[in-house]
Amino acid sequence: MNVLAIGAHPDDIEYGCGGMLIKYAERGHAVYMFVASDGALGGDGAERRREQHDSALIIGAREVFWGEYRDTELPLNRDLIVRIETVIREVQPRMILVHNPDDTHQDHRNLAQAAMSATRYVPNFLFYEGPTTQNFAPNCATDIEKVLDKKLACLEAHRSQVAKTNIEDLSILELAVSSANFRGIQARVKYAEAFQSVRLLLNL
Amino acid sequence: MNVLAIGAHPDDIEYGCGGMLIKYAERGHAVYMFVASDGALGGDGAERRREQHDSALIIGAREVFWGEYRDTELPLNRDLIVRIETVIREVQPRMILVHNPDDTHQDHRNLAQAAMSATRYVPNFLFYEGPTTQNFAPNCATDIEKVLDKKLACLEAHRSQVAKTNIEDLSILELAVSSANFRGIQARVKYAEAFQSVRLLLNL
Amino acid sequence: MNVLAIGAHPDDIEYGCGGMLIKYAERGHAVYMFVASDGALGGDGAERRREQHDSALIIGAREVFWGEYRDTELPLNRDLIVRIETVIREVQPRMILVHNPDDTHQDHRNLAQAAMSATRYVPNFLFYEGPTTQNFAPNCATDIEKVLDKKLACLEAHRSQVAKTNIEDLSILELAVSSANFRGIQARVKYAEAFQSVRLLLNL
Amino acid sequence: MNVLAIGAHPDDIEYGCGGMLIKYAERGHAVYMFVASDGALGGDGAERRREQHDSALIIGAREVFWGEYRDTELPLNRDLIVRIETVIREVQPRMILVHNPDDTHQDHRNLAQAAMSATRYVPNFLFYEGPTTQNFAPNCATDIEKVLDKKLACLEAHRSQVAKTNIEDLSILELAVSSANFRGIQARVKYAEAFQSVRLLLNL
Amino acid sequence: MNVLAIGAHPDDIEYGCGGMLIKYAERGHAVYMFVASDGALGGDGAERRREQHDSALIIGAREVFWGEYRDTELPLNRDLIVRIETVIREVQPRMILVHNPDDTHQDHRNLAQAAMSATRYVPNFLFYEGPTTQNFAPNCATDIEKVLDKKLACLEAHRSQVAKTNIEDLSILELAVSSANFRGIQARVKYAEAFQSVRLLLNL
Amino acid sequence: MNVLAIGAHPDDIEYGCGGMLIKYAERGHAVYMFVASDGALGGDGAERRREQHDSALIIGAREVFWGEYRDTELPLNRDLIVRIETVIREVQPRMILVHNPDDTHQDHRNLAQAAMSATRYVPNFLFYEGPTTQNFAPNCATDIEKVLDKKLACLEAHRSQVAKTNIEDLSILELAVSSANFRGIQARVKYAEAFQSVRLLLNL
Repeated sequence: MNVLAIGAHPDDIEYGCGGMLIKYAERGHAVYMFVASDGALGGDGAERRREQHDSALIIGAREVFWGEYRDTELPLNRDLIVRIETVIREVQPRMILVHNPDDTHQDHRNLAQAAMSATRYVPNFLFYEGPTTQNFAPNCATDIEKVLDKKLACLEAHRSQVAKTNIEDLSILELAVSSANFRGIQARVKYAEAFQSVRLLLNL
Repeated sequence: MNVLAIGAHPDDIEYGCGGMLIKYAERGHAVYMFVASDGALGGDGAERRREQHDSALIIGAREVFWGEYRDTELPLNRDLIVRIETVIREVQPRMILVHNPDDTHQDHRNLAQAAMSATRYVPNFLFYEGPTTQNFAPNCATDIEKVLDKKLACLEAHRSQVAKTNIEDLSILELAVSSANFRGIQARVKYAEAFQSVRLLLNL
Repeated sequence: MNVLAIGAHPDDIEYGCGGMLIKYAERGHAVYMFVASDGALGGDGAERRREQHDSALIIGAREVFWGEYRDTELPLNRDLIVRIETVIREVQPRMILVHNPDDTHQDHRNLAQAAMSATRYVPNFLFYEGPTTQNFAPNCATDIEKVLDKKLACLEAHRSQVAKTNIEDLSILELAVSSANFRGIQARVKYAEAFQSVRLLLNL
Repeated sequence: MNVLAIGAHPDDIEYGCGGMLIKYAERGHAVYMFVASDGALGGDGAERRREQHDSALIIGAREVFWGEYRDTELPLNRDLIVRIETVIREVQPRMILVHNPDDTHQDHRNLAQAAMSATRYVPNFLFYEGPTTQNFAPNCATDIEKVLDKKLACLEAHRSQVAKTNIEDLSILELAVSSANFRGIQARVKYAEAFQSVRLLLNL
Repeated sequence: MNVLAIGAHPDDIEYGCGGMLIKYAERGHAVYMFVASDGALGGDGAERRREQHDSALIIGAREVFWGEYRDTELPLNRDLIVRIETVIREVQPRMILVHNPDDTHQDHRNLAQAAMSATRYVPNFLFYEGPTTQNFAPNCATDIEKVLDKKLACLEAHRSQVAKTNIEDLSILELAVSSANFRGIQARVKYAEAFQSVRLLLNL
Repeated sequence: MNVLAIGAHPDDIEYGCGGMLIKYAERGHAVYMFVASDGALGGDGAERRREQHDSALIIGAREVFWGEYRDTELPLNRDLIVRIETVIREVQPRMILVHNPDDTHQDHRNLAQAAMSATRYVPNFLFYEGPTTQNFAPNCATDIEKVLDKKLACLEAHRSQVAKTNIEDLSILELAVSSANFRGIQARVKYAEAFQSVRLLLNL
């Protein structure tokens, strides 16, 4: 199965669904990533692209597509939809993972809306969460206990971002572990990533 | 995997998730059914039990457990929870399917609440829908096109109930097909059963 | 009473509330339609306009207003609101019917938002559903059993669209019947169209 | 059309939908009331029954059915459902009005649940609100400007309750007017009663 | 503590949270207001600015910041976010109050979305309601009985707007009192302003 | 201010709102606890009572009231409401903290419902969360960084329960820290307890 994860900035995808992608890649599925902006307001753009590619290597993703939008300026219009549609045509994914549309970051909101339109006929469509997500109501999850270290390695690959959590003395790694544990207990496992499915085909 | 479907009366399970159960059984999973009441207010109790067992044969279910409660009198108390717990201990299911808790029928509501407690640590827990379900917000589905005929055969096995839809000239079969088509288009397939997952482990 | 139905593309209105409009026209109410785009991405624009006018004749609508927007490019800005306000001033409707705002098609979302602003002081305001609607929570409905054939004739008048459901072997007519049956049983009738009211004055 | 309003205690119905009932009666519809308890914890039971009958006279209701349950002890079980079903069979209503099920008063919650079951096949079913209602999300309303005085007269007929609002210096009359004005502006009229419809057939 | 109230047009803030601001100012907190447009479609722009400053004096606000946007044309883009961020940097607020994002007025919707992004790291963030708010679900409130007169004086300071409620014979003052009483009873006081908190730090 | 925390079993309160109670007690407020059952199914009843009292000492609570109900058998009826009303009359609380009503444990659900009725006129009413809570939508929080160690000490005082999380190798302490960190980042602090307020008076 081809899987496409969509995120606004480098490291958004890994935080939200890195463990899921690692599991997909380990099982032989083809994982692709679309990153809409190089996140140049949160660090040097070129550096963040390198970090994103280092992380994609750890995940085992086949390719990172870049949206070339400017950080904080993802447009809520047809242009972004068309950009994603181009990737959809190339990748032919059966599963889409994207930001939850209720989020305090406008780029996350706009990308979720655009992805909802562009991937209208893809049968599996899930929202993932991040530190700025609001009102997230997960209804499914995946056990990431065995791939947690690898997920953390991905987040560490985004070296310029590890300490940027807006909370003093709190690294993105600590937060990712807490989140995995919090969602784990809800899923009756130790560590999990949680999702809100819009469409999900149960293939048994 | 062991699967347990829980319904208040004969034919409730088949209408809500008969296609899903048929697919599970076809793939070699062990399917069990718990029917809380023989539905004696909607027909002869003994006849409805026979119909239920005929239908279970078509599904390929291993066993039908009976709750022995009186129709319309499922209690909202610990007794019903304990009854389900007994089945859980015997079957050891990994997947539970039950009525949506928002429903105009009190038996459906009470059974959904009791099941939620009794199956607290089962990792997969889904609500199915029926004609009296209210405010159903499905987030996942399964393609039942290839098993639709078999699902309809199950509903026909409940001979005493086929014409009982409270709408003149409308059989339960026609309704099941319309529902499958309506949920199908939402899932991007022709015929589907839709579910609202409370807990669902994505095993990839 | 003057009624205004608002849809993004030809045939959207008929699928969502064609039966309701036919009933309004039959009872002597003045029915108007606003179609924002000629849907040129889903067929020849001129042909689709002719189909829309043929369908409006069957409904008995007094006039079809065209938005002249390009398909998939309905803007989420004041321009669209002002365009609808112009129609509102001309038609003076007491009842508005429009797409549900949660939908995978951006044109449907944007039109619903714009209509919500433009019709702020119209006392009756309902959302209708379609194949791309998401999370629809209807709270009212109308019995369309007696006008179902006429509704289907409207959908057939959109000749270029009948087979375009994105599901092989599934026509828009079959889907409309399934949907009417599914919503019918919820409304305790055989065939219905369902709506989510934002404002609805009960006049008894 | 036969209309049945259902309330837990004397004056609950009038506060929630008195204006609506007055309008129904004025237009010649047959209005019935079911009051589950005489509210003996909030006043003398016999006196409250007399007040209820005085109010029913003002409304123009044909009959008040009494549930004979003890105040604060409405049971959440089949007994209450069966009691309401008896009234349904006698009255044959097409429209039901009852408390919102989310309420801080257990009698209101239990009665709403029981009514939902007992009236399962009545085509029109609305929740009304009161001072203890929580999370009310109205989607329809009726203009009560012309019958507001009569509604207030009904509330005054419940003489023993007028001052019992749990807020010093605030009468139930003042509260009813504020509520009517608050819901009015939302419905684009001066004074309204608001409802949340579960099922509502639009008959045009 | 520094408090920033954000509104689209003159008098929006006072209607939604005037009482709260008066209480903050009386207790010595620094109150600031950001008004995005001078509301020139609802009256003379210069006059409305004067009215806003008169009202701010009554509140005891330290400063009114103006967004200089045209009435009904607040953009849903980064420009508005950046404008608010500038004010945030100057004021350093710990508490933000803004329109509910579900509203029939596009300016209110867009401003709520923009504020959600711009104030992402402010610990307290509340939505207030107004006559065009939809689906408001308040979860907290403040008692405004002692400052109700002062709140009404603020609304009267907006002389050009007092009679503009779109309901004949209904002034904004009467509506504000009804709303305060309606929300008051829910908060167990006589008059209140109600809020929906997105983030609220309980400092005990 | 008098504060009453309500929990079904020993340690439920501490997990959900222990930090909040510690802060209240430290600031001189009078903290009371009502524990409905001694939790004899999860350990020895007498031992669990001692653990509860040890923990209450650490919190600085003035008194622990016991409900004397049997574990898993909290009734959904008036008896439980009356029991809580007795405590309310004695304690005269201004703030109530209780389980979220959507929970897989029937005791938690029933206690939340009963508390909602019994505390109807208490102005502040918050739901807390625990490992079995479902669909929790917090809207406020309190910073517990400075009291986290003390909260963990309370949980450790429930010695018989520390290892009982239903997840191998996961202690209740680790889970409490993860939860505090997860809710912290949402509240823009390092560690927090989150709440869903039903009623909350902002006293500034």
